[in-house]
Amino acid sequence: MPARYLNFRCSLPWLLLLLQTLCLIYSFFGFPDPGDVYPHLYPGFQDVNHMVIFGFGFFLMVLRRCGFSSTGFNFLLIVLGVQCSLVMEDFLRFLGLQYYEVDLKSLAKAVVSMTAVVISTGAVLGKANPVQLIVMTLMELIFFYISRWINTTFLQVPEDLPLTHVHLFGAYFGLAVTSRFPEPPPGLDKSRSTPKSDLFSMLGTVFVWVFWPSFNSLLTDSSMKAVLNTYLALAVSAVAAFMLSALTSKDGKFRMTHIHSAVLAGGVTLSYTAHSIRHPWIAMILGLLGSVITILGSHCLQRCFNPALKLQDTSGVHFTFGLPAVLGAVASVVLHVVETGIAQQWSDLSSLGYLVFVDIGAFCQTISTALITGLITGLILNIKLLKAVHVSKYFDDQLYWEVSFKMISD
Amino acid sequence: MPARYLNFRCSLPWLLLLLQTLCLIYSFFGFPDPGDVYPHLYPGFQDVNHMVIFGFGFFLMVLRRCGFSSTGFNFLLIVLGVQCSLVMEDFLRFLGLQYYEVDLKSLAKAVVSMTAVVISTGAVLGKANPVQLIVMTLMELIFFYISRWINTTFLQVPEDLPLTHVHLFGAYFGLAVTSRFPEPPPGLDKSRSTPKSDLFSMLGTVFVWVFWPSFNSLLTDSSMKAVLNTYLALAVSAVAAFMLSALTSKDGKFRMTHIHSAVLAGGVTLSYTAHSIRHPWIAMILGLLGSVITILGSHCLQRCFNPALKLQDTSGVHFTFGLPAVLGAVASVVLHVVETGIAQQWSDLSSLGYLVFVDIGAFCQTISTALITGLITGLILNIKLLKAVHVSKYFDDQLYWEVSFKMISD
Amino acid sequence: MPARYLNFRCSLPWLLLLLQTLCLIYSFFGFPDPGDVYPHLYPGFQDVNHMVIFGFGFFLMVLRRCGFSSTGFNFLLIVLGVQCSLVMEDFLRFLGLQYYEVDLKSLAKAVVSMTAVVISTGAVLGKANPVQLIVMTLMELIFFYISRWINTTFLQVPEDLPLTHVHLFGAYFGLAVTSRFPEPPPGLDKSRSTPKSDLFSMLGTVFVWVFWPSFNSLLTDSSMKAVLNTYLALAVSAVAAFMLSALTSKDGKFRMTHIHSAVLAGGVTLSYTAHSIRHPWIAMILGLLGSVITILGSHCLQRCFNPALKLQDTSGVHFTFGLPAVLGAVASVVLHVVETGIAQQWSDLSSLGYLVFVDIGAFCQTISTALITGLITGLILNIKLLKAVHVSKYFDDQLYWEVSFKMISD
Repeated sequence: MPARYLNFRCSLPWLLLLLQTLCLIYSFFGFPDPGDVYPHLYPGFQDVNHMVIFGFGFFLMVLRRCGFSSTGFNFLLIVLGVQCSLVMEDFLRFLGLQYYEVDLKSLAKAVVSMTAVVISTGAVLGKANPVQLIVMTLMELIFFYISRWINTTFLQVPEDLPLTHVHLFGAYFGLAVTSRFPEPPPGLDKSRSTPKSDLFSMLGTVFVWVFWPSFNSLLTDSSMKAVLNTYLALAVSAVAAFMLSALTSKDGKFRMTHIHSAVLAGGVTLSYTAHSIRHPWIAMILGLLGSVITILGSHCLQRCFNPALKLQDTSGVHFTFGLPAVLGAVASVVLHVVETGIAQQWSDLSSLGYLVFVDIGAFCQTISTALITGLITGLILNIKLLKAVHVSKYFDDQLYWEVSFKMISD
Repeated sequence: MPARYLNFRCSLPWLLLLLQTLCLIYSFFGFPDPGDVYPHLYPGFQDVNHMVIFGFGFFLMVLRRCGFSSTGFNFLLIVLGVQCSLVMEDFLRFLGLQYYEVDLKSLAKAVVSMTAVVISTGAVLGKANPVQLIVMTLMELIFFYISRWINTTFLQVPEDLPLTHVHLFGAYFGLAVTSRFPEPPPGLDKSRSTPKSDLFSMLGTVFVWVFWPSFNSLLTDSSMKAVLNTYLALAVSAVAAFMLSALTSKDGKFRMTHIHSAVLAGGVTLSYTAHSIRHPWIAMILGLLGSVITILGSHCLQRCFNPALKLQDTSGVHFTFGLPAVLGAVASVVLHVVETGIAQQWSDLSSLGYLVFVDIGAFCQTISTALITGLITGLILNIKLLKAVHVSKYFDDQLYWEVSFKMISD
Repeated sequence: MPARYLNFRCSLPWLLLLLQTLCLIYSFFGFPDPGDVYPHLYPGFQDVNHMVIFGFGFFLMVLRRCGFSSTGFNFLLIVLGVQCSLVMEDFLRFLGLQYYEVDLKSLAKAVVSMTAVVISTGAVLGKANPVQLIVMTLMELIFFYISRWINTTFLQVPEDLPLTHVHLFGAYFGLAVTSRFPEPPPGLDKSRSTPKSDLFSMLGTVFVWVFWPSFNSLLTDSSMKAVLNTYLALAVSAVAAFMLSALTSKDGKFRMTHIHSAVLAGGVTLSYTAHSIRHPWIAMILGLLGSVITILGSHCLQRCFNPALKLQDTSGVHFTFGLPAVLGAVASVVLHVVETGIAQQWSDLSSLGYLVFVDIGAFCQTISTALITGLITGLILNIKLLKAVHVSKYFDDQLYWEVSFKMISD
């Protein structure tokens, strides 16, 4: 492996400098005086911020030689992406597309948007180098804004709801990107997890689990209802995760990867409907279905699906975030239609049909935009300029961090 | 060891499925619409939830081969137990015994009740298999509800206070259960702790310490007074923990297990009186006494006590939660009597005597119920159907988790 | 090494007992009834408490054999120091110097003051034994109170602002103390970090990073503006940290120590001005400069500076907290002058000159007091009575904790 493949000194710092300078220049001209407003949002914002930076950083730490990269790059992408996201929102305001101010609410929106990037990062972790990750972050943010803009403008999705598509977009964008990376050889020792990395990942998972009700309730009005529904759905999906993990594994033992992904399924499933579900049992059923789809998906589909499409996402984001988000989107359409139908006593079926059409349209538009733009991004990331990492160097902190081989194996 | 001892595939998933289905069915018929109420409770609830799931999960991780079981089973029992607890509370409402709604307050109560189960789990950790733990959780919740119901109905304990018996009940229930399990051989290598497990346990301990003021103030009215008293008591007991650890150990070195258990003693001791103590110095004295009783208890009593009763609780819950809770209960009686006596100018001694009788009655009722029902539970857990683990297989993640021996020893 | 050097049994517990008794006696006579006030402060206080105890405890864990000491002693010093700080504040009230009550606000002030001690501890970690650390804590608290008192009385610094000097005082006090300790031999194996210790340190760093906006906004009025400015500054300094780390290291790889220290620089720099900065871009520029000064300082200055002064601070507090705090102080003077000048239309230059004089006076007074009292403290700590640790025994948990050599190397 020639040395130039390993050396990002000539590209990475200058890319970061360029982006940071652009953000600074924009903030000089664009950002207004931050108002001293929304103090009631602060505890919720703090929870979500903590969950995204700390929780996801350790949640992604599943591979034995990727500890630094998981937490470090997750951190870097978020602090960079939040600034870019603020700039983009403000630029939209400049174009007159929406009203905007830099305050705690817009910061909260920026952090929530970054969840899409974090999820996509989970799919290419250890395969993409930092330069590729940064380019991916930028492109994903732009495409996510376009997808949101289409949803609010043409598909009449309410102003705050498009952010609920964040898991759907993040998961399928990440899958499309990772499909353009060459597959690592099957017996690669570095792609294993160790009990230590599993323990750190468990630590991150529990963090994310605990803060998920804050995530689902942050930008809604009926926030306590959203908290309660999300908590119950998460609890049911955690129980179902243990149940199905023991059922599907050999000897009835629990498998850590199942637990990691399935305990969160309830929260993802409820992201569309947490604030509007009227009866706790609906939330609980959705949590159960989310967990079932995650584990059965990872158990059955993986075998038929992977060999055909040569797809390997490092942290299993397809099963952790993709499938439950699809389930949640479908459930939100069904619940919306049933609710409106009951309110109208099923009298106006054509308006119901229109409702279904618009809801499903928004959901399909998000997935298809994510897949197409993800493929484009994946192709761009593999151009020669970005110095893609060779397959044999996948999943290794040593490429990016000053750390000796001997010490990592401790 | 025959294979059937190791295989929970035919029991565990179906037990979980049964319980989850019952909860779902009950929630369909029973749970009302969750109101969008008590938003001011949310930050405190979040703290307590975090403390119970994350803090206790890592607090229990003292043994070198029990990392996954400590965090994983703690998590499973809580998510299952919270649902069962909500169902039981609602069932009491159905029986007309109390007013009830499914909202954030009832969720907070359910999480606080689960602390009893978490503490009991600490006593049997690594000895009981998951099926036994789940059965124990259910039985303990039922018995704790009965004990609380006796306290409020016959012993005139105010409605919210019975939850303060949670540490007392949890510790003695756990001790009674663990006394029915066979003793592991003394030289068992797996029951040692390593610096790594101690570090994770320290991580959990600090979490629990930081959130304890929220725990003591969650369901009270004078919450800031409770926070302040608890914080001071915790601070004093932490200082005393370091002091006594250096005094009682060889060479004046600190012992991690002392620190783990004694720093929390102040919080447990104050659980009865945090909201009512008028002078900070009383809280501080109680914190000091709590810490003294914990470390001297673990230093002196353990030698005389253990051989006689053949008692070994894995995480030392007797000293961490049991003794300080007894001290706190006694202190609450004394403070209550002194306060009422001063208010009455010691004129009506017979009413004071009645007060003492009722207060001590509530406290003795809780301990004796915990011990008796704990013994019964311990006997039930060891029936053949539940496949008790053989002594030689104690304290080992390998029985329940897919993880190779070689990797765990890393 | 004779045994008496290793044995703190005759000194440490009794010192702790003495201090704790004094606090208890004082609290008996001095502390008033804690009011049930400031409930809106609680979430912010909880964040800061969590950050100081948990975050800094793990942030300091950079050395491979100092894990227990980092978290344990940090914890001990804080719980002891918070009590002493409350006693000192109340003693000032007794002297009539200021109005005071023991409530959540005073507890918050005590925890914020302890940050100075935590930072100084970072400079002598592994070199000083627990007795020395406790003596240092007491002396530093007293000197910090004197420095604050001079600032508010003679230099007209507003009542709450002197606490913002906490990083400046802590860093330079710690540096002065550590300069009086003998230098460890350069090739000492124990002063290295391992990937495991780096990972725990990263965990602590992320915690501190996430909670820093709460720290800067806790005792101010415009708290949401302070949150927003601090968040943006922290984000910029984190991006700059990755950028400069890749630029200054060999092969363009990231160095963990750079990341650890520089991501926090923005928060330290903003500690003076977070609540008053009107335009986000100023906060972002300050964050950038803070990060630049941290990494270039640690890269360039360390080579010229260390050999001359024989200075080694274990956790690099000079670069993490010292230099950014100086930058922040200078920036606060400049911003203050520019703002007042614009308001006065630069008409009254003599009053502006007085303003500059007073602001710079406060800042120089803090640094010089820190350096002088730090040197005095360093000399006192090395008297024979306190049994200074021999250089060959530096950075080793085994001296203070019951833990076997073999196990630590796992």
